[in-house]
Amino acid sequence: MSNTIGTIFRLTTFGESHGFALGGVIDGCPAGLEIDPDFIQSELYRRSPGQSKIVTQRKEGDKVEFLSGIYEGKTTGTPIGFIIRNENQKSQDYDHLQDAYRPSHADYTYDKKYGIRDHNGGGRASARATVSSVAGGAIAKLLLKKYGIQISAYTSQVGDVKLLKNYKDLDFSKTESNAVRCPDELIAETMIKKIEQVRKEGDTIGGVITCVVQNVPAGLGEPVFDKLHADLGKAMLGINAAKGFEIGSGFEGVKMRGSEHNDGIIPDPFPKEKGGVIFKSNNSGGVLGGISNGDDIYFRVAFKPVATIMQEQETINSKLEAVKLAGKGRHDPCVLPRAVPIVEAMTAMIIADHLLRNRSSKI
Amino acid sequence: MSNTIGTIFRLTTFGESHGFALGGVIDGCPAGLEIDPDFIQSELYRRSPGQSKIVTQRKEGDKVEFLSGIYEGKTTGTPIGFIIRNENQKSQDYDHLQDAYRPSHADYTYDKKYGIRDHNGGGRASARATVSSVAGGAIAKLLLKKYGIQISAYTSQVGDVKLLKNYKDLDFSKTESNAVRCPDELIAETMIKKIEQVRKEGDTIGGVITCVVQNVPAGLGEPVFDKLHADLGKAMLGINAAKGFEIGSGFEGVKMRGSEHNDGIIPDPFPKEKGGVIFKSNNSGGVLGGISNGDDIYFRVAFKPVATIMQEQETINSKLEAVKLAGKGRHDPCVLPRAVPIVEAMTAMIIADHLLRNRSSKI
Amino acid sequence: MSNTIGTIFRLTTFGESHGFALGGVIDGCPAGLEIDPDFIQSELYRRSPGQSKIVTQRKEGDKVEFLSGIYEGKTTGTPIGFIIRNENQKSQDYDHLQDAYRPSHADYTYDKKYGIRDHNGGGRASARATVSSVAGGAIAKLLLKKYGIQISAYTSQVGDVKLLKNYKDLDFSKTESNAVRCPDELIAETMIKKIEQVRKEGDTIGGVITCVVQNVPAGLGEPVFDKLHADLGKAMLGINAAKGFEIGSGFEGVKMRGSEHNDGIIPDPFPKEKGGVIFKSNNSGGVLGGISNGDDIYFRVAFKPVATIMQEQETINSKLEAVKLAGKGRHDPCVLPRAVPIVEAMTAMIIADHLLRNRSSKI
Amino acid sequence: MSNTIGTIFRLTTFGESHGFALGGVIDGCPAGLEIDPDFIQSELYRRSPGQSKIVTQRKEGDKVEFLSGIYEGKTTGTPIGFIIRNENQKSQDYDHLQDAYRPSHADYTYDKKYGIRDHNGGGRASARATVSSVAGGAIAKLLLKKYGIQISAYTSQVGDVKLLKNYKDLDFSKTESNAVRCPDELIAETMIKKIEQVRKEGDTIGGVITCVVQNVPAGLGEPVFDKLHADLGKAMLGINAAKGFEIGSGFEGVKMRGSEHNDGIIPDPFPKEKGGVIFKSNNSGGVLGGISNGDDIYFRVAFKPVATIMQEQETINSKLEAVKLAGKGRHDPCVLPRAVPIVEAMTAMIIADHLLRNRSSKI
Repeated sequence: MSNTIGTIFRLTTFGESHGFALGGVIDGCPAGLEIDPDFIQSELYRRSPGQSKIVTQRKEGDKVEFLSGIYEGKTTGTPIGFIIRNENQKSQDYDHLQDAYRPSHADYTYDKKYGIRDHNGGGRASARATVSSVAGGAIAKLLLKKYGIQISAYTSQVGDVKLLKNYKDLDFSKTESNAVRCPDELIAETMIKKIEQVRKEGDTIGGVITCVVQNVPAGLGEPVFDKLHADLGKAMLGINAAKGFEIGSGFEGVKMRGSEHNDGIIPDPFPKEKGGVIFKSNNSGGVLGGISNGDDIYFRVAFKPVATIMQEQETINSKLEAVKLAGKGRHDPCVLPRAVPIVEAMTAMIIADHLLRNRSSKI
Repeated sequence: MSNTIGTIFRLTTFGESHGFALGGVIDGCPAGLEIDPDFIQSELYRRSPGQSKIVTQRKEGDKVEFLSGIYEGKTTGTPIGFIIRNENQKSQDYDHLQDAYRPSHADYTYDKKYGIRDHNGGGRASARATVSSVAGGAIAKLLLKKYGIQISAYTSQVGDVKLLKNYKDLDFSKTESNAVRCPDELIAETMIKKIEQVRKEGDTIGGVITCVVQNVPAGLGEPVFDKLHADLGKAMLGINAAKGFEIGSGFEGVKMRGSEHNDGIIPDPFPKEKGGVIFKSNNSGGVLGGISNGDDIYFRVAFKPVATIMQEQETINSKLEAVKLAGKGRHDPCVLPRAVPIVEAMTAMIIADHLLRNRSSKI
Repeated sequence: MSNTIGTIFRLTTFGESHGFALGGVIDGCPAGLEIDPDFIQSELYRRSPGQSKIVTQRKEGDKVEFLSGIYEGKTTGTPIGFIIRNENQKSQDYDHLQDAYRPSHADYTYDKKYGIRDHNGGGRASARATVSSVAGGAIAKLLLKKYGIQISAYTSQVGDVKLLKNYKDLDFSKTESNAVRCPDELIAETMIKKIEQVRKEGDTIGGVITCVVQNVPAGLGEPVFDKLHADLGKAMLGINAAKGFEIGSGFEGVKMRGSEHNDGIIPDPFPKEKGGVIFKSNNSGGVLGGISNGDDIYFRVAFKPVATIMQEQETINSKLEAVKLAGKGRHDPCVLPRAVPIVEAMTAMIIADHLLRNRSSKI
Repeated sequence: MSNTIGTIFRLTTFGESHGFALGGVIDGCPAGLEIDPDFIQSELYRRSPGQSKIVTQRKEGDKVEFLSGIYEGKTTGTPIGFIIRNENQKSQDYDHLQDAYRPSHADYTYDKKYGIRDHNGGGRASARATVSSVAGGAIAKLLLKKYGIQISAYTSQVGDVKLLKNYKDLDFSKTESNAVRCPDELIAETMIKKIEQVRKEGDTIGGVITCVVQNVPAGLGEPVFDKLHADLGKAMLGINAAKGFEIGSGFEGVKMRGSEHNDGIIPDPFPKEKGGVIFKSNNSGGVLGGISNGDDIYFRVAFKPVATIMQEQETINSKLEAVKLAGKGRHDPCVLPRAVPIVEAMTAMIIADHLLRNRSSKI
C-alpha cells in the first residue's frame, strides 16, 4: 500500500524520474464529474521545472495522458489511469552517482532496503514522482469545486525571509504572479533574491509553505486515528524534503494558556452562511477533535534545503570507501516554488477522500 | 478504518470515556512473543490520572484484561483482544455540558458529523480513549525489544519553559523520576512549578514532547506515501491535543543552507556495529527519503493547552443560543506528563508495523 | 487484516473457543441506528449449541455485552465494541489432543504457520469464533431493515437429502419451526432423521445452505475485484467447513446455452415498485457484472461433514509419530442447522458494506 | 479499493475495452526478482483473442509495456506500472447498443450504479479488462517459481462434456497443445466440436476450469476472514462470467460422511520432501482451517455461457421501452479457453500475496 493514498478517493502511483513514464490510477472518483483537461494540465505546468530562473532548468515535458475512466468529458466511476512520459532524461548527468551515496539523499536507504538501486536521478525517491500526485490532486480539485471548497497554498518563508501577515490579509490571486509563489509582492521579491544568491553560491535553502482550505463543511474527519489533520499531516510529510507540519496555532500555540487558546463560539447573526456559529478565533486551525468545524483550515509545512548542492561533499560509495562528490546537472536551489502546487494537490485529495467518507457518517 | 492503525501490526480500538469499557484488538502480532503482563500494566499506569499533583485526580482504574491471542505466556499469532473497564465514572460531572458545546472541544464537530453525541466526558473524543493505544504500544514495545530497538520520549517544553539540551546529553533513565517526565531535573522542577501555577489560576498550558528511537535498522519505511516519518507524523497528530510534528531539523532547519544541513557520510571504523557508515550530523532525524538510515530517529510533537479550563467562557448550546460555561470536575492542567507514554506507544506501533512490512522488501 | 472484514462497515474479531472471551469491534456503522438488544441476542441464540437434539449439547452461554458506540439506544457512529464471555469451558475434553493433529482440522496447519498452538477446542479455528460474526451481522441486519432488505437462509441439503423446490415456492417463516432450519417441513423431518442416524453411528454429514436476499437496490457492488458476489463468496468461504459457493445458475448453469441462460428484460407495468424493469428469469442470481440488478440475490454454500467424529482415526502427533484418535466431548454431527444464522450474518455485513460504499458512486 | 487486489503483493488496474489503454500498478513485489519479458508476453498471448477458431477473432494487440519498477532486468521494489494499448477498436460494432441494455450483461447495472455508461464493448465490464490481471499474474508466477510453486489450470468441462479423470492422472504439459486447453486430447476434441457447433448456431456455452497448485508450503492463509481458499474464491468470482467456486471435495463432498471425508495423516517415510507428513486423501483440497497444509491445492470455477449471442433477444432501452437485440461483431462462443490463463494469473497473485503475508507469522 506504500504507493497508495486515500480510502475512498484513492491514488496509486508509479514511476521513476528517468524511467519510461510515471503515472497512476485514481480509483473511487464518483461518476458524473466534468473533467477539464486544460485545468489539469495547467496544474501540472505549475509543478514543472524551467518555469522561472529560481527553479531547475531541466525540461521534463509534463504532459499528462488520460487512458481510462473518462467518457465524453465526464468521469464514469471506473478507475482513471494516466501516464506522464519522461523526456529529455539526460541520465548521463547521474553517471557519477552510480556508486556513491549522495549525502541527505535516499540513495543509501534505498540500497539498504531493496539491495538494488536505480541511481538515475534519484529513481522513485526523486521529486519528479510528485507529478502523479499533482494529476490526482487536479481531479480532486475539480470534485471539491462542486462543493465550493477552495485550496490556496503559498510560500510563506524562504530561509529567514518570513511573511508575517495572517493569511486573511493576503490576496491569494497574487500567488501566481511571481516566481516564488508568495502573494505578498514585496516579500516575494526578497525571497527571490535570497534564492538567486544561494544558487549562485552553488548552495540551496529551505522554507515553509502555508496552505488554507476554505469553505469545508463541518463534519469531515474521522475520530481517533484518521483525524482530518492527521491525514493532512501524513500527506504533507510524504512530500519530498518535508520535515514538519503544524495546524492552527501549531508549535507557537504550546506557549499559550487554555484561556487564550480556546476559540470561543458565538451565535451567527446570519446562520444560513456558516451553519449557525461563529468562532471568535481560530487557533484550532479549523479542526476540533480531528473533525472540521466549518472554519478555515490552515496549516504550515516545513521543507529542508534541497540535498543536491554544487559544492563538494564528503560521502562514501557502496564499497563503504570515502569519496568526494559535487552535484552536476540542473537542480532546484529551493524546493518551495514548485512545492506549492504539490501541497495543494495532496490537500485536495485528502479533503476529497474525507468528503466521500463522510457520506456514511449518518444513517 | 477510522479506528484502526497499522498495515501488518494493526490496532483497532473502541470505547468512550464513560461507557462500560474501552479496549481493542491487536491483529498481526507475530506468534511466539513472550508477554510480560506486569510491563504492560506498568505502561498503562504511566498514562493513568492521579499519579501526581500536576495531573487530573480522577481515578480511572486502568486495569487491562487480555481476552485472547496469548497462550501459556506467548502470543499465538491470533488477534489479541483486550478491555479496560471504566470505573468511578462520575458522569454527573458532565451534566452541565449536555446541551453546550465546550470551546475548542470536539462537542460541536461530533454533533455536526453524527447528529448525535454522548456528552459524558467527551465520549470517544476523550483522552481516555488513548488507554487502548498504550496497551497496543506495550505489546509493540515487547516486540521491538527483541530487536534491541529503544523508544524514549520526554517532555521538552511546557509553555515557555524549554529544555535546550540535545537529547544526546540527557540521561533517559531520569525521565520517570519526576512528575512532568523531563530527564533534566532542574528544568523539570521549573516545568512543574509552571503547571502548578497555571492550575491554581484555573487555566491550562501546552508544551512539546520529544521522542528518540534508537537502534532502528536501516531500511524501514516505504517510499512515497507511507514514508516512515509520514506514518509517525500521522500517529502523533492523532493523539488528543497534538497540533504539530517535526522530525530532525524540522521547522528550524528551513533556515539552513543545504551545505550545512546535509549529513555527510564517512566510513565506520567499527563497521559491525552500525552497518558500516557514520553520519557526521543527523539533521535528517534518522530518515532519508522516508526510509530509516540506521541513525537515531528523533522528532517533536506540539500539544496545545487543554481545552477544559475552570474559568468561564463564551459558547453556544445546541439551540445555537449564547451560554456561559466553566469546567467542573477533575481535569489535567497540562496534557504533557501523561502524553509521554502515549507518544512512545504510538511510536512503538508504527516502528513494529514497518519492521514487519520490511520483511517483504527483498526476494 | 486477517481478522477484519469490510471496507466501510467493518468487523474485526478476536477470541478462541476456550479463552476468556470472544468479541469484536464494528467500525463504520452510521450514527442514528436504533439498536434492539433483544433482536441481537436472539440472533446469537440461533447459533448457540444445545438448542435441539441434532446439534452439540455444549453450553456456551452466548450472552453478548456491548461496551461502546451505543448511546440511549442508538449508534453514535463510533466503534461498537462487544464481548461474549466463555463459560463451561471443560477444556479437559481436549487434553487428549494436546499432542495430536486431528484429521481434517486446522491443528496441523496452525502449528506449521505459527509454531505454537492453543489446542483447547480448536482455539481460533473453532466454529465458536463465528459468534462474533453473528453479533456483527445482527447490527448489519438492523441497518438493512431500514432499507427494507431481507435476508433468508435455510438448509437446502443434508447429505443426499435435497430440497428441490425453488426458493420462491417456500415459506421462509417456517425456517425456524424445525431443528434443521429447512422451511419445507417434510424434507426437514427427513433431514433430521438423517442427522440423528449419522450421530448414532458416531459420524457426521455435510450439506448445503441456500441464502436469498430480497429488495436489494440495483447498483451495489464494485467493478472488477470487489464484485458483489465475489465479496459474498469470500465471506461464505470464510465460514468454518465451507468448501463451495455458487450464485444464480452456478455449477449447473455451465451446461446451459447463452440463449437459455440469458435473463431477458421487459418493461415493468408498475415501474414504481421495481425500478422500471422486470427480468424474465434470474439465472444471474441478482448480480450482473458484479453489481446488483434489483432482482433477488440467491446463492448456495457447500459445507463438508464436521471433522470431529467419535470413530477412531489414523493420525500423527507433533513428533510425527503415528497415533490413533477418536473424538470426545460434545460435537455437532452436522454443521448446517447452526450455520444458517452465520450465513445470514456474513451476508448482512457484506450487503451493508456495499450499501455504504455505493453512497460514493455518483457525484 | 474496488480495482485493487492483494494486501502486500497488490495489483491495481484500470482500463476499458475500447478506451486508449488498459493497465495497472503492481505494488509490493519484492526487489531483486528477475523479470523475463518474453514469459510475461507469452502469458498475455495465451489470453489473446484470435488464437484459434473457437475464440473470438477480434485483434486486440495485447502488447504489454512496462513503465517503471524494473531496472537492468530486475524488480527494484518500487511499483511496476504497465499499460496495454487498445488497437483495432472497431467501436462502431457497438453503436447499436448505445441505448439498449444487453441481457445478462452489466449494461443495466452500470447505468444504475453510475448514471453514465461507456457502452463501447462493455467498457470496464468487458473481459478485455482481465488483460491487466494476466500481466500482474505473470509477475507473481515469476516470484512463485523461485519457491518451486507450480500453477496448472485447464478446462475440465464444456457444457455437458466433462473430463472425469482426477488431475493426478493428467499430463499438464498437454494443456497448451489444443485450442480448448484440456490436457486430455480426446475430451479436448469433443469439447472443441461442441463449441464449434454452438458457435454455428449463434449461441454460446459455459463450462468449468480446474486449477491445481503444487508445492505450496504449509502455513499460507490467514485465519477467519482471509482464509486462503476464501481469497482464492473471491479472486475467481471476480473473473468475468464466473458463477461458482469449490475447493477439494466441494459440492460433491456434502454427501459424504466425516469418516470418509477426513484426510487421515501418516508419517512420511521421506520426511525431507513433504515436511514429514503424508495425507492419505485430499478432500480438503490442500487447505485446512483456511491455511495450506502442504498438499496440492485444487479447485474448480464455474463459468456461465457468454451473454453475447447472435440470436435476437428481448430487452429494453434506457427509456425503458421494449426492444429486440442481436449480437454483432466478433465474440467468444465459450469463455473457457481464454479464461484458463486468467484463472492461473489470479491464483498466482493470491498465492504470492499470502507467501509474503506469511513472512510475519512468527517472531
